[in-house]
Amino acid sequence: MTSHSESELAYLSIEQAGRLLRRREISPLDLVNASLARIERWNPSHYAFLTVLADEARKQARLTEREIRRGGARGPLHGIPISLKDNFWTRGIRTTAGSKILADFVPDSDSDVARLLASAGAILLGKTNMHEFAYGITGENPHYGSSRNPWARERIPGGSSGGSAVAVGSGMGFASVGTDTGGSIRIPSALCGIVGLKPTFGLISTAGVVPLGTTFDHAGPIARSVADACILLEAIAGKYPRGEAPPDHRKLRKNRPRRFRIGVPKEFFFERLDGEVRRLVEAAAKKFESLGARVEEVSLPRLTGAIDQATYAVVAEASAYHESQGYYPARAAEYGDDVRGHLEWGHKLLAVDYLGALPRRREIADDFEAAFEDVDIILAPTSPIPAPRIGEKEVHPPGERETTVRAELLRLTRPANVTGFPAISIPCGFTREGLPVGLQLLGPRWGEARLLAVALAYEEATEWHERHPDLS
Amino acid sequence: MTSHSESELAYLSIEQAGRLLRRREISPLDLVNASLARIERWNPSHYAFLTVLADEARKQARLTEREIRRGGARGPLHGIPISLKDNFWTRGIRTTAGSKILADFVPDSDSDVARLLASAGAILLGKTNMHEFAYGITGENPHYGSSRNPWARERIPGGSSGGSAVAVGSGMGFASVGTDTGGSIRIPSALCGIVGLKPTFGLISTAGVVPLGTTFDHAGPIARSVADACILLEAIAGKYPRGEAPPDHRKLRKNRPRRFRIGVPKEFFFERLDGEVRRLVEAAAKKFESLGARVEEVSLPRLTGAIDQATYAVVAEASAYHESQGYYPARAAEYGDDVRGHLEWGHKLLAVDYLGALPRRREIADDFEAAFEDVDIILAPTSPIPAPRIGEKEVHPPGERETTVRAELLRLTRPANVTGFPAISIPCGFTREGLPVGLQLLGPRWGEARLLAVALAYEEATEWHERHPDLS
Repeated sequence: MTSHSESELAYLSIEQAGRLLRRREISPLDLVNASLARIERWNPSHYAFLTVLADEARKQARLTEREIRRGGARGPLHGIPISLKDNFWTRGIRTTAGSKILADFVPDSDSDVARLLASAGAILLGKTNMHEFAYGITGENPHYGSSRNPWARERIPGGSSGGSAVAVGSGMGFASVGTDTGGSIRIPSALCGIVGLKPTFGLISTAGVVPLGTTFDHAGPIARSVADACILLEAIAGKYPRGEAPPDHRKLRKNRPRRFRIGVPKEFFFERLDGEVRRLVEAAAKKFESLGARVEEVSLPRLTGAIDQATYAVVAEASAYHESQGYYPARAAEYGDDVRGHLEWGHKLLAVDYLGALPRRREIADDFEAAFEDVDIILAPTSPIPAPRIGEKEVHPPGERETTVRAELLRLTRPANVTGFPAISIPCGFTREGLPVGLQLLGPRWGEARLLAVALAYEEATEWHERHPDLS
Repeated sequence: MTSHSESELAYLSIEQAGRLLRRREISPLDLVNASLARIERWNPSHYAFLTVLADEARKQARLTEREIRRGGARGPLHGIPISLKDNFWTRGIRTTAGSKILADFVPDSDSDVARLLASAGAILLGKTNMHEFAYGITGENPHYGSSRNPWARERIPGGSSGGSAVAVGSGMGFASVGTDTGGSIRIPSALCGIVGLKPTFGLISTAGVVPLGTTFDHAGPIARSVADACILLEAIAGKYPRGEAPPDHRKLRKNRPRRFRIGVPKEFFFERLDGEVRRLVEAAAKKFESLGARVEEVSLPRLTGAIDQATYAVVAEASAYHESQGYYPARAAEYGDDVRGHLEWGHKLLAVDYLGALPRRREIADDFEAAFEDVDIILAPTSPIPAPRIGEKEVHPPGERETTVRAELLRLTRPANVTGFPAISIPCGFTREGLPVGLQLLGPRWGEARLLAVALAYEEATEWHERHPDLS
């Protein structure tokens, strides 16, 4: 039925795959088989999936083929194989959240995202590996094996949506949905050379997601291109407060901004960067200038002083959830060391410190709002460093005191969780060693349409997103 | 200019006073002088006011008289002397919040409530005494003297808006605005035999109020009748979420409900009551039946189990505020013993316990919402006991273990703070010793119109609100 190679099929964009499906050049089963072939080959070495739904996906593909033949495609996701991070409840399908505690948990209902993906006609290939309870940024997992970076198997993919990023970056499915509480969509997307969107807080329902920090948790797409991310967003987002639908991927190109203003923060985001990351992100700013953007400095004066305290709240919210479920401290021995340590810390945090963090969050949001009066989009690195090695605990930024890998990876993504403003990570080049680097674009609250349009303008002017890793 | 005695003038209802003002039978200065005469006579023994604005009020009365003569009255509060609890910021007027720490604090701006009262034309007589930082329910104050109950000078008026209740109950002004975080409007109104309304959370702005627990704080009217409370509400309330204005006092009587359903909770509210309180509140339920109401039992199954934890959050929010201002622990020695003790407790509270309280609040609100599907209004006592003696620390409920006066006084008012639902206390009789007892009516969120109409129906069928204390 098809003359396309498995690898060609597996790396199609969602739009390309949809065109071939509509022309009957390929079937949904071809797409599922191409994805499953790669999962079978590479998952044992790269730990992208915790649960593979091979039979179910093939069955669904056959049903979908008949549906499309009879009634045409329901929309751009109809017949497209995707994956879901394992902290989204899936009815009848084990949902571990990467933990031992939920190793045998089979939900009796779907998360909103799972339900919306199914009704858009996406085919679920499986549930992806993740940092235990989404409570970490490396993607290492002591219970199920640590996901591996497709660009360098000895390196982390980043987390907590590490398995999703590995899967999407390796052609094991066309896209995935992850969660982002401090950077958990954007960091693995950056370290794996793909696109990760954390939309405005509240735009995508987190009902039926195992929570981490309830006032910081976001769900969002992980994809190989800006248009693909937008297609997922359309399927899983709710409406905007004024009733508008999420941005339409077909209009992104038409509505390409002619004139736009890009802000480069003079504080915080460009401090203590790896030299290659700095070079590539500065080159991206230049690229925007060549595309007609006005690139100017913006100030976020209170961010550096407020961000640590503003983020405290996450650890308290996480501990409160784990206590409310009877997981911690009752079953403390069943956690990995790192997560148990965070929960212990959060358990001791004082309420006055939790509450004292709230005005800091407001200050940071106010600084961003002031900056967005002058610019459309703020440009920054996603991660200050490329993917560290598995097991690496410390980094030594040039001329600075050593710090932890965890603190360093989270540093530049946390502001968008504290404020709830949307942010996207897109590929902006590779280090000399061949590791991908992510460009982070941040927008104002509910500003996804402009954010995606600006990201697409950059993507179309560059070729970084067209490179795929050699897993062998 | 007037043939009315000072005492007759001082106890007029706001509507009556307004009628006489419009007919020019009295002037605003007559009202101010009548109120001030009583303040001069009784404030030294009853500690209702911390700051008396005699000259300013007289000056304002003369201005107001000219305004009314020229352009007519702006509304029902124009020319009416009122007071304000001393935790509302008043521009250029000392605002102590009953504390030593703010003994010399003169705000440079008005609270929203102060501004709205002024633009309604009310004349400010002064700032009323209160429990230090509103953090207590007895109205005792170690820095400025404890307010005295107008019905029995050796007894507390209740707090924290104790000075406001004493002032209104003693004819030192026509009404007042207080704050209610756990019962601080309703308790002193009950113990002083007057009307206190805590509206739905958010209906009256608390901007410019020295906060206690930010997610529990409410501002609201203290008055001598339901119509007077409604007149104040109209002046200081914002709009409802759908844009409606607050209830109109002129329509309350017209819209008297013909058929309404009163719920009597089978749990929590009728446990461990003083015998005379029980008798009077049960008689009020009977009175409602005689007015055509259907009185039925309702259930609030989770309230008893959840209320203590749900209220934890206040102590944490209070400590967080006092720390953020550099008051506590830096100036711990300047607090009264009780408030310092609460702040110390709140300082030690864990964030997980603060966060664990939030689902308890939701449970309680859900129970009330379920009950309000069956009934219009829930009926309960305001306080389980009549006014205790000043200095009394323990109460011994019949057949129960001893408990603290504080815990006992707060017990039945806290649910409306936890949920944010509106509640009003109106007089429902006197103990054999002559102490007033309060009836608490609770309504659904944003349900002030029905709540006030039902309260008015009871008030018009009884005479309790017409009795005034003999201060001599």
